[in-house]
Amino acid sequence: MTTVEKPHYKVLGTRPIRHDGLDKVLGRAVYGADIKLAGLSIGAVLRSPHAHARIQSIDASAALALPGVYAVVTGADMPIADDELIDMTEEIVNARFASMRIIAHEKALFKGQPVAAVAAVDLNTAQEACRRIKVDYEPLPAVFTVEEAMAADAPIIHEHLVGTHVGEKVPHTNVAEHTQHVLGDPDAAMAKAEVTVEGEFRLARVHQGYIEPQNATAMWYRDGKATVWTSTQGSFPARNAISSVLRMPVSAIKVVPLEIGGGFGGKINIYLEPLAVLLSKKAGRPVKVVMDRRSVFEATGPGPGGVVRMKLGADKAGNLVAGTVDIRFAAGAFPGSSISAASTCVFASYRFPTARIDAYDVVTNLTKTAAYRAPGSPQATFATESLMDELAHKLGVDPVALRLQNASKEGDRRPDGIVFPRIGNVEVLEAVRDSDHYRTPLDRAGAAPGHKRGRGVATGYWQGVGNKSTVTLAVNNDGTVALIEGNTDIGGTRASIAMQAAEVLGIPALDVHPTVVDTDSVGYTDLTAGSRTTYATGAAAVKAAEQVVAELKRRAAIMWEVEATDVDFAGGVFTNKKAKDTKLTFKQVCARLDRTGGHVATTGVVNLRGSGGGSFATHVVDVDVDTETGKVEVIRYTAAQDAGTAVHPSYVEGQMAGGAVQGIGWALNEEYYLGPDGSVQNASFLDYRMPTMLDTPNIETLIVEVPNTMHPFGVRGIGESGIVPPQPAIANAMRAALGIRFPELPIKPGRILEALDAQGA
Amino acid sequence: MTTVEKPHYKVLGTRPIRHDGLDKVLGRAVYGADIKLAGLSIGAVLRSPHAHARIQSIDASAALALPGVYAVVTGADMPIADDELIDMTEEIVNARFASMRIIAHEKALFKGQPVAAVAAVDLNTAQEACRRIKVDYEPLPAVFTVEEAMAADAPIIHEHLVGTHVGEKVPHTNVAEHTQHVLGDPDAAMAKAEVTVEGEFRLARVHQGYIEPQNATAMWYRDGKATVWTSTQGSFPARNAISSVLRMPVSAIKVVPLEIGGGFGGKINIYLEPLAVLLSKKAGRPVKVVMDRRSVFEATGPGPGGVVRMKLGADKAGNLVAGTVDIRFAAGAFPGSSISAASTCVFASYRFPTARIDAYDVVTNLTKTAAYRAPGSPQATFATESLMDELAHKLGVDPVALRLQNASKEGDRRPDGIVFPRIGNVEVLEAVRDSDHYRTPLDRAGAAPGHKRGRGVATGYWQGVGNKSTVTLAVNNDGTVALIEGNTDIGGTRASIAMQAAEVLGIPALDVHPTVVDTDSVGYTDLTAGSRTTYATGAAAVKAAEQVVAELKRRAAIMWEVEATDVDFAGGVFTNKKAKDTKLTFKQVCARLDRTGGHVATTGVVNLRGSGGGSFATHVVDVDVDTETGKVEVIRYTAAQDAGTAVHPSYVEGQMAGGAVQGIGWALNEEYYLGPDGSVQNASFLDYRMPTMLDTPNIETLIVEVPNTMHPFGVRGIGESGIVPPQPAIANAMRAALGIRFPELPIKPGRILEALDAQGA
Repeated sequence: MTTVEKPHYKVLGTRPIRHDGLDKVLGRAVYGADIKLAGLSIGAVLRSPHAHARIQSIDASAALALPGVYAVVTGADMPIADDELIDMTEEIVNARFASMRIIAHEKALFKGQPVAAVAAVDLNTAQEACRRIKVDYEPLPAVFTVEEAMAADAPIIHEHLVGTHVGEKVPHTNVAEHTQHVLGDPDAAMAKAEVTVEGEFRLARVHQGYIEPQNATAMWYRDGKATVWTSTQGSFPARNAISSVLRMPVSAIKVVPLEIGGGFGGKINIYLEPLAVLLSKKAGRPVKVVMDRRSVFEATGPGPGGVVRMKLGADKAGNLVAGTVDIRFAAGAFPGSSISAASTCVFASYRFPTARIDAYDVVTNLTKTAAYRAPGSPQATFATESLMDELAHKLGVDPVALRLQNASKEGDRRPDGIVFPRIGNVEVLEAVRDSDHYRTPLDRAGAAPGHKRGRGVATGYWQGVGNKSTVTLAVNNDGTVALIEGNTDIGGTRASIAMQAAEVLGIPALDVHPTVVDTDSVGYTDLTAGSRTTYATGAAAVKAAEQVVAELKRRAAIMWEVEATDVDFAGGVFTNKKAKDTKLTFKQVCARLDRTGGHVATTGVVNLRGSGGGSFATHVVDVDVDTETGKVEVIRYTAAQDAGTAVHPSYVEGQMAGGAVQGIGWALNEEYYLGPDGSVQNASFLDYRMPTMLDTPNIETLIVEVPNTMHPFGVRGIGESGIVPPQPAIANAMRAALGIRFPELPIKPGRILEALDAQGA
Repeated sequence: MTTVEKPHYKVLGTRPIRHDGLDKVLGRAVYGADIKLAGLSIGAVLRSPHAHARIQSIDASAALALPGVYAVVTGADMPIADDELIDMTEEIVNARFASMRIIAHEKALFKGQPVAAVAAVDLNTAQEACRRIKVDYEPLPAVFTVEEAMAADAPIIHEHLVGTHVGEKVPHTNVAEHTQHVLGDPDAAMAKAEVTVEGEFRLARVHQGYIEPQNATAMWYRDGKATVWTSTQGSFPARNAISSVLRMPVSAIKVVPLEIGGGFGGKINIYLEPLAVLLSKKAGRPVKVVMDRRSVFEATGPGPGGVVRMKLGADKAGNLVAGTVDIRFAAGAFPGSSISAASTCVFASYRFPTARIDAYDVVTNLTKTAAYRAPGSPQATFATESLMDELAHKLGVDPVALRLQNASKEGDRRPDGIVFPRIGNVEVLEAVRDSDHYRTPLDRAGAAPGHKRGRGVATGYWQGVGNKSTVTLAVNNDGTVALIEGNTDIGGTRASIAMQAAEVLGIPALDVHPTVVDTDSVGYTDLTAGSRTTYATGAAAVKAAEQVVAELKRRAAIMWEVEATDVDFAGGVFTNKKAKDTKLTFKQVCARLDRTGGHVATTGVVNLRGSGGGSFATHVVDVDVDTETGKVEVIRYTAAQDAGTAVHPSYVEGQMAGGAVQGIGWALNEEYYLGPDGSVQNASFLDYRMPTMLDTPNIETLIVEVPNTMHPFGVRGIGESGIVPPQPAIANAMRAALGIRFPELPIKPGRILEALDAQGA
């Protein structure tokens, strides 16, 4: 680790035990499935066996006749109709699609889509009731790929959808959106380019790999209110989503966020929550629904796959002159496939004088995709970084040097129009260039017989987001501070937010006690997602802590009988400007709160525009390929990333290593393997091949700290950019090892052996 | 009702449905015994059969050997020792006595005192285990009354206690405290008085009558933290108490306040909480303990009984010239019997030129007394108001006129030194004087044969308190507002606090959604007690709401492109001073929060000194006495009280009626009837004779509104003074009916018949 020394911080940069660590190892953390309520009933969901079918009728009478069955819910119970034209520019669109996504209305649009839900005395009864529900389907032709969905004669999934294609409204289409960003005249520049590289890259859908299945428990009350307990990445956004789908006022819904067993973007959307509320309403008692693993795979949101066609042009000196890309993501049954972030991230790492980015959001008869760590960026960047590697080969230059030469810097404009503030792209590339790993030549000769080795490099970017957060601080007389927040903790944010408050207050990190509360108990707070939480909610904590300091200065002033302006504060110590050597610690002032006006509580609110430039990551990887079996071993891996200021370096390293490991899986093994009917053939963790400890080396990490000018401590969100480089870095390493460019993920053994055969032929 | 018209308030003075009403009638309110946790075990408590005994040994081996028993706790597990001198002026005193009160250390000091506690798989097993614990007691002589305890040869309950007697330290005593307030030279004034009245008044211990028994559920964690779920009148004070008894940092304890099934002062003290924590610590799982009814009567805190000796002197014109009183309360086994408030309230209703108040806090071998609505005032005021009635008889004047003539007013000094701000004593007496009830002569002739009728009047006072409260407000985009508070709601304070926020915001009361949260989730908040909640926490809500208005003015200013100072706000409407007729409602501004800088959340903190003068109540009652049976029927009852500003008149009326009904029970029937061994002979609600609907007439209420100058809306706490006048008013009515002064409570049929016999003899 090459953390820049930060002698001016007392808490930031240290590695305290995480505040929720003992909760989690001792079993007192309450996860979604742990919730117990008096009179709790259990829900089950009947799902469509068809990828595309009109629902002629649903007969639940046999289910309702089963003893122990309390309620059945179908699409007819949803308050939003689906028979009007859906214009992608209308505000209602999300609610209407969300409603259909929660449970099929007139048509089933993907295999696994809920068609009916049951609440019963226990799970067996609920499942038996599901089996007794008779659904009459009229199967319809289905489309699963971008090509099928965009074919001229493709069956149209949403008859009422009106697509927006570069500003034009287009009816009768499976292309919900086609957006375009143009910078300069890329065609003219490309025509003049002295060197060009191009390719078509194909990506499969991939699972986020969270262990805990989606769940929801709801209690509906006869006054029209509901409480929902759920593991979610955002209790307030979940409240908004339930509100809009069920047409309930937000203030009628209380979302209690429970501990979350992994999310990575997959627990942003709601799935079971509205069904649990409607079941509870009919059953008159609380209802808990937990997905089984097959449903998680078939009916929640994986990261999208698709096709990316890209061409890059450069001059002989290696300066990029033009880039064009066509990104087509298969959104699944409803629009929304991360094309926006794919467009903004795809060319962000480099200074492109001219560029054109076309992005297509294409609906298909599969479950709607969702966010997956840096959503959209890994898929699009796989093309960019594969071609940058090809460009380095063509030019015969070092791939890191080529990237450094073209790296985007402060003041550079992205093709989507954003001008970068201070960013750490160059510093991260330099860290890799100067790393022990990169300076140590790969031991190609050390490979076993039949094995070949290669080294690859790639860069990745995540733009980050800001948005709304609230933190309330309440000071205890013993000098500890309760920190009340609305962000669920998916990656150590209790610690990273508490540490920022502690830094301002000059007290130990563990003297700040963070609590994640429900939507009735704190101000609005946006998602734990987008690498925003440590950055934005941290900023709210800083704001609240600064108010505490201001108030405690007034208290110290009362004790010293001076003005508050005569009190200085630094490093947890108040000093009296009027009397040298007169000091009081934070704890000492807190001990006298009662005698100086009472207790202190403050609320900090932020709504940050943007992330302050986002975070860049560059990875270098060495692979060893067994040319007999196609097995790839990652033998050394180094990840460098800009953290702005690393609040808790262990968690920064953890995020970097975690991104690398997920990326290794994505590169080499993971995919939704679909049958001809659109069913997921590997819908279990045994068959969906995520990397284990045996598949990954130690991930070496290099934290680079280029402070974020938008944050009081320079903090950047660091949760996501680390998943962007691994896939192209490994593809580039395979290219180095075998001389073969793999343009499709995953680079699985069968594909490797086929390519080796073709190479040999 | 004679509420003063308040056209300037939109919300205050209206009667919306209470926010928690549906929660309670629909069964979603979670009370102490409702809590369910995974792996919950059940606790039981072994209690002392002796009122006073040395504990020679405790052998729990047979209990621990019983299958299903997880843990046994005794006094030896408490971290505070009891073998040092206890000086009543030392800060440790409360913690040490509280520790012994929770569970006996070396001696059992009252019958029913916990001696051991058990956690087991179920209640039967826990109770059986209690039976198997062998305790070797050495019984000691016990004292139950003030006289017994103060006798020269009395057994000393606390060998280590050092009493404070008017500033002097006195060892080897059962009088923990003797305080004195002197105003002028009362002896000289009394000697010159033209008319004097005097008497000795005796009071029994009385139960607050809450229905829900005390309970506590605790989970202790191996990192030294604990969560406690309990029905309490104060989650933060409970946290402090657990902290001091168990020597844990406050920040290691989270108290989750559950709904409370009645308190009236009886749920301020902790009882089972530390035992549940220690049991959980030993058992390694959560433990729930709920008291049975006998334990509630024998081992929690009733209001104190005792003896009050008083003498009043007046001139012939009826002007009071002197008052002396000697108040002796039997505190029970540990010091603290409300003598402080008894002293400050006893003469507060009148202007005494001279006075002396002596008050004794006397320990006895009974459960320690606790607060009971206006704690101490009813007992002491029973003497004052009985004697004022005698004085009116002696002078031959109207009892209301005599009270009006002497009534305390703004600027008058109480004997304890407090100078009254604006108060409503005179206005309340005038309201009674002018009431239909008082102006309608009592129909004495309408009594049945053998029945006699009388009318009585009395005044009462409760001083109220202020102290610390926190309210956090979070504004939703739909114009509703979440109100987050730390005060448990025992009498409608969710509504009365929410209404004050709504008044400031100019929105309907039901658009403010109050939530009571745990001690980790809001700033410090004092007890729901002392008539402070609507007053002080209401003031915190006003403060937070004013911050919301200030912020929303800035938002409206952004929308109008003017300065925030150009925006006016009144009655929920923002207006643009720069453009006449340009208006936005609160809801409209909220709908655009996201476009004007984001969401809004604020925290209001208050620490109020005093209550702003307290609240006076005067009651008039007509009784019908059956001289054959001694049965007393209350045939008409009117209660007048100063509410400052009545926030929710229905709840003010409810508090007034509730106080009257409790006072009727206290006057006529209720008492802890003790056996010679100190055991409570009527420890059930069947035997402890509280009034039912059949025993009480409709209570007519007169709300008087003399605004409190300490509160932004003039609100006074109104929960307590209404229980002070009923007992003397009824005694005075009995005097009017029978010509007999009853100086002892309750005025039960046996006592009445004895007095009639004596009168006849």
